[in-house]
Amino acid sequence: MRALLDPQSIAIVGASARAGSFGERTLRNLSGFAGRLHLVNSRYDAIGEHPCHASIAALPEVPDLVVAATPMEAAEGVLQDCITAGVGALLLYAAGFSETGRAERIALQTKLTAMAQRGGVKLVGPNCIGLVDYARGARISFVAVPEAKAPPSRPAIGIVSQSGNLGFALAQAVEAGMSIGRVLTCGNSADVDVADLVAALAEDPACSAIALVFEGMAEPRRLIEAADIAWAQDKPLVVYKLATGEQGAQAALSHTGSLAGSDATYRAAFARAGMVLVEGFEGLLECASFLAKAPAPKAAGVAVVSTSGGSAIMAADRAEARGVALPQPGAEAQAVLVARIPDFGSARNPCDVTAQVLNDPESLRACAGALLADPAYGTLILPNGYAYDVATPRFAMLSALAEQHGKPACVVWTTQWLEGPGAREVEAEPRVALFRSMDRCLAAIAAWQARAALRAEGPRPVERAAAPEAAARAAALLQAAGPVLTEREAKAVLAEYGVPVVQELLVADAEEAVRVAERIGYPVVIKVESPALPHKTEAGVIRLDLRDAAALRTAFAEVMANARRATSDDRINGVLVQPMVPQGIEMVIGARRDPLFGPTVVVGLGGILVELLRDSGVALAPVTRAEARRLIEGLRGAALLRGFRGMPAVDIERLAEVVQRVAELAADQAGQIAEIDVNPVICHGARLLAVDALMARSAPHG
Amino acid sequence: MRALLDPQSIAIVGASARAGSFGERTLRNLSGFAGRLHLVNSRYDAIGEHPCHASIAALPEVPDLVVAATPMEAAEGVLQDCITAGVGALLLYAAGFSETGRAERIALQTKLTAMAQRGGVKLVGPNCIGLVDYARGARISFVAVPEAKAPPSRPAIGIVSQSGNLGFALAQAVEAGMSIGRVLTCGNSADVDVADLVAALAEDPACSAIALVFEGMAEPRRLIEAADIAWAQDKPLVVYKLATGEQGAQAALSHTGSLAGSDATYRAAFARAGMVLVEGFEGLLECASFLAKAPAPKAAGVAVVSTSGGSAIMAADRAEARGVALPQPGAEAQAVLVARIPDFGSARNPCDVTAQVLNDPESLRACAGALLADPAYGTLILPNGYAYDVATPRFAMLSALAEQHGKPACVVWTTQWLEGPGAREVEAEPRVALFRSMDRCLAAIAAWQARAALRAEGPRPVERAAAPEAAARAAALLQAAGPVLTEREAKAVLAEYGVPVVQELLVADAEEAVRVAERIGYPVVIKVESPALPHKTEAGVIRLDLRDAAALRTAFAEVMANARRATSDDRINGVLVQPMVPQGIEMVIGARRDPLFGPTVVVGLGGILVELLRDSGVALAPVTRAEARRLIEGLRGAALLRGFRGMPAVDIERLAEVVQRVAELAADQAGQIAEIDVNPVICHGARLLAVDALMARSAPHG
Repeated sequence: MRALLDPQSIAIVGASARAGSFGERTLRNLSGFAGRLHLVNSRYDAIGEHPCHASIAALPEVPDLVVAATPMEAAEGVLQDCITAGVGALLLYAAGFSETGRAERIALQTKLTAMAQRGGVKLVGPNCIGLVDYARGARISFVAVPEAKAPPSRPAIGIVSQSGNLGFALAQAVEAGMSIGRVLTCGNSADVDVADLVAALAEDPACSAIALVFEGMAEPRRLIEAADIAWAQDKPLVVYKLATGEQGAQAALSHTGSLAGSDATYRAAFARAGMVLVEGFEGLLECASFLAKAPAPKAAGVAVVSTSGGSAIMAADRAEARGVALPQPGAEAQAVLVARIPDFGSARNPCDVTAQVLNDPESLRACAGALLADPAYGTLILPNGYAYDVATPRFAMLSALAEQHGKPACVVWTTQWLEGPGAREVEAEPRVALFRSMDRCLAAIAAWQARAALRAEGPRPVERAAAPEAAARAAALLQAAGPVLTEREAKAVLAEYGVPVVQELLVADAEEAVRVAERIGYPVVIKVESPALPHKTEAGVIRLDLRDAAALRTAFAEVMANARRATSDDRINGVLVQPMVPQGIEMVIGARRDPLFGPTVVVGLGGILVELLRDSGVALAPVTRAEARRLIEGLRGAALLRGFRGMPAVDIERLAEVVQRVAELAADQAGQIAEIDVNPVICHGARLLAVDALMARSAPHG
Repeated sequence: MRALLDPQSIAIVGASARAGSFGERTLRNLSGFAGRLHLVNSRYDAIGEHPCHASIAALPEVPDLVVAATPMEAAEGVLQDCITAGVGALLLYAAGFSETGRAERIALQTKLTAMAQRGGVKLVGPNCIGLVDYARGARISFVAVPEAKAPPSRPAIGIVSQSGNLGFALAQAVEAGMSIGRVLTCGNSADVDVADLVAALAEDPACSAIALVFEGMAEPRRLIEAADIAWAQDKPLVVYKLATGEQGAQAALSHTGSLAGSDATYRAAFARAGMVLVEGFEGLLECASFLAKAPAPKAAGVAVVSTSGGSAIMAADRAEARGVALPQPGAEAQAVLVARIPDFGSARNPCDVTAQVLNDPESLRACAGALLADPAYGTLILPNGYAYDVATPRFAMLSALAEQHGKPACVVWTTQWLEGPGAREVEAEPRVALFRSMDRCLAAIAAWQARAALRAEGPRPVERAAAPEAAARAAALLQAAGPVLTEREAKAVLAEYGVPVVQELLVADAEEAVRVAERIGYPVVIKVESPALPHKTEAGVIRLDLRDAAALRTAFAEVMANARRATSDDRINGVLVQPMVPQGIEMVIGARRDPLFGPTVVVGLGGILVELLRDSGVALAPVTRAEARRLIEGLRGAALLRGFRGMPAVDIERLAEVVQRVAELAADQAGQIAEIDVNPVICHGARLLAVDALMARSAPHG
């Protein structure tokens, strides 16, 4: 990767003097390259002052990186030449490969990938618009590359984008003064992909935070591994995800499974890897820049120093919406505010210092300094309503205070003169981040706090909830079962993992059912057990709340009659008799094999919440206890669990443990289980009991 | 108002030569004023080339508008001089009045207001930073006023802001090329307030759309009246509302009432008045500018012409999220796309024309023109990923096509060079709107479509659902009742309005209950009627689903015993016997008197949806059938009504009629009713029945 990202020498194959050609544009973009530049084109002896060589083999040295500004048809030849010469990396601009959807072009791309990997050449593209390293002037692209007015200052952001166009659109932030170190795009990702590029930036000491535009990939676990490297380096990785529509979820068989669309799984995987997901494209660089500039938060509170009542209210509105606390200042800071702020201002948080104080540098310094010194605050927001030169020294003052207190500060640019005086200066301050939206500022602060909380949890514990022998015993049960397990079989598997399941007995006739009911006590539930009837309610083969022998006998006859209408006697195993579990909050715990990420666990509140409002949470399996708890507490209807309409509060720790157990089952038996649907788990205080369960085995692999 | 907004002559009281003083800054800002400017200050004979007069009385003419650049203490005297001289309007910069919260300052402001209104002087402020009319160079302010490079072009936006700072922050959009006609702020709104300013802009032919920053006011119905004027003129009124936190809702007594926070009521009132509410401050001017440039939509579909796959996906993502359709092109347009777009692009919608076509003006014109000509599309989005000069002619071409087809076009500026080449040119195009966010573009398009749909409904019908005699008869029933009506009394009032209520009989003892039950048929429900026990479930004085005489007798004894434990015999009217209504979807319909807007109606799905997830909709009462339907269909859980788990679909038209009837009751009896809570209304197909109701009368007015 070093040949690709830090080439000492670059050769342009297809270099050209023809204005507007890819070769000519690339040459122009590389005019400031700090390394050695070589040109290859048999039609020229020289282009400008650069000598031009007939082939890669004819170059005075073996270049680290070759850029091919040649058409699609030439790609294979250039790659072969690189392999022969021992070139480290090749970047292919040419389009017309797998993105056309045409079989022969896809085959050609696959061939190039295999050649490059066998030949030891890192291949970027095809269909790639380029790679930029601002520090070394390596602006390798055929499009106009945004020009930075100065080399990147610390801290600098690295951009990785699957979309070349969006990556270079982000790079234009250098025009507004943002410090960007690199812009890396990968086109069709035939060989080098976003995971490789993220991993490379994660280990690049010049990069303080990574901004990623991500669309999707065949092996996203590779991206998660790259994110793990960034996490280990404590380097923020902020991602904007495209293709958020919930596609592909319809094919899922079971209920809870179908609620976990692949976008939800991506989010789950990203969250677990400590990636920061931004909602809007506009927030990507702002958030990355803030995180690059912000040391770990020293306190959860946020202070707001505003020049206007309107901005102060806006800050309070957005803080409430984003769950960020704006506590009141302590006595010391309070005293400073009261002394400095006129009576038509507001000496509280958010504080309205009025335009009077804002134009008085000493007073503003005193107020901002007092708030940053207050241990209640981790950062300070200064909304900026006008873009005028007076603001510039103000931002430098804020930066000095931020540095002094080891806390970041935020300028929220409410002015519509988006690049007006002062904006560029804020971008360059190492401890002050610029947001052009109050909402995005508070969202970034919330993400910063959440990331810190996750770091504070330390490494993921390897603790296991299930007994050591559970895996082998459950595997044996699964092997003995059919493609869809009966309820009784499914519960037996769950029981091996310590999931609390309702007890039951299989009976052959009504009289045996009555004897069982008398032993376990009325009321009881009966259900016909048949592999042909997985959906018992719809088939009419289940009866609840049977209170005496007479009711039980009648119901028995009814369910058996319904079962016989639907299937043949030899597919009816008998009738299950279970105690009727008293009312409680109904939860659904499911698991599903995501085609990209493997086993996942899904949690939802039963009934209409999960079915109608899709109020469910998904996580990659297995999960830690803390992750399971966050899943549960993240449900919109979670308040239902905290005691509702006189119900006792559900033991959420115990529920999280059950989720953890189901997730362990799904992870351990990933090769055997396609889907699990434990529905419902009836919860009443500390009493949790799974009363029904469905489990489907994976189709055997061919 | 003409003296205020179109003054022919302006006098600055407190004009000054001292650099940085309010008087000096105002004089500087007014240097380009197209009318006559006078200065008043007894300490100068002249300032620069302007003669200076000793008093307002000494001026050569009576000015239309006086601007007082004087301290708080001088305000009363200046106002008196204005009244004496017959000045039309007075603008007061001075702060230190009601915003201090101090009683004597509030009293002073109240005094000024009374003086101005008696004296026939329109008063703006105090604590006002100014008014700007770019067309006539009337930049009346003591702060630096953003400078427009050119006079406002058509269409131009008018800005009205309660917050002076945010208003002038928005005005800085002129620096980026946006066409802004006026910026009007009103400080403490002692006399002239945002409602007056909105009404004035609504009738100003030079203003094509109004952007409003709103915080709150004591008589918001006045703003609604101003919005009605704007609606009558078909002038879009776009509002960003501050102070969205749900305050003040806690005090509400009944359940549904407490769910309708005052912010929700504002939203309801704004929506009914046809105002467009934007979620984010960043979207305010963009949306107003788009609506100013956009004629009524000719079709609901939106076409996207993108240069990159990433932007195309982003458009699809955000369109899905905002409920905007991106249909496929018809055969004619399709043929053009296929002919023009290379095979590595995408000849569908959203279409990826690739950078190749984007840089080929003729091909791009052909594709964009074909899509705009397609009757499926009402507008076209062109994402712009780079800011380079090449883009400028492209935007002019797009504008010409938009003009030709009578459809607006949108440029989404994905580039981070926010004011890069081309941005200013887009702002100036009369039919092309610039968005710096794909999401905000789609949100604005959705708002445009919703506004058009509302206009298509025509004037609000005056149709009434309730019988003509209902109002008088219900009023009589209410007058006869206590402060909290019994369930039976409440239902009698509802029945007058045609709300379907369950039948019931009041009985004195168990045997009478059994006789009633035998007449109406088992199962039955019994409830103790007592004004002391409004919450029957909690008091244990209600029993459901009694299936025979024995069960009824037992239950009767139990509820009476519970009632007697909770209250005395003389407060027990008897026991209600009702038929047990079979299961269905439970709805809650409520009404509440909002302290600002008067009667409102609230609709929610019963149970946890409304109580836990606050899934309710609120509207000002009375409502039209269409408004009631929108309330119901806007519920997150509305799918429950469309047939769920085998339940028949609820007759939504019938349900809307019931909502309309409850709203009419709340509106007709606004003076008598504080709150209504019809909970639940059990809905099963076309069968709708209110089985319980609570009604509280207003406290008598002193």
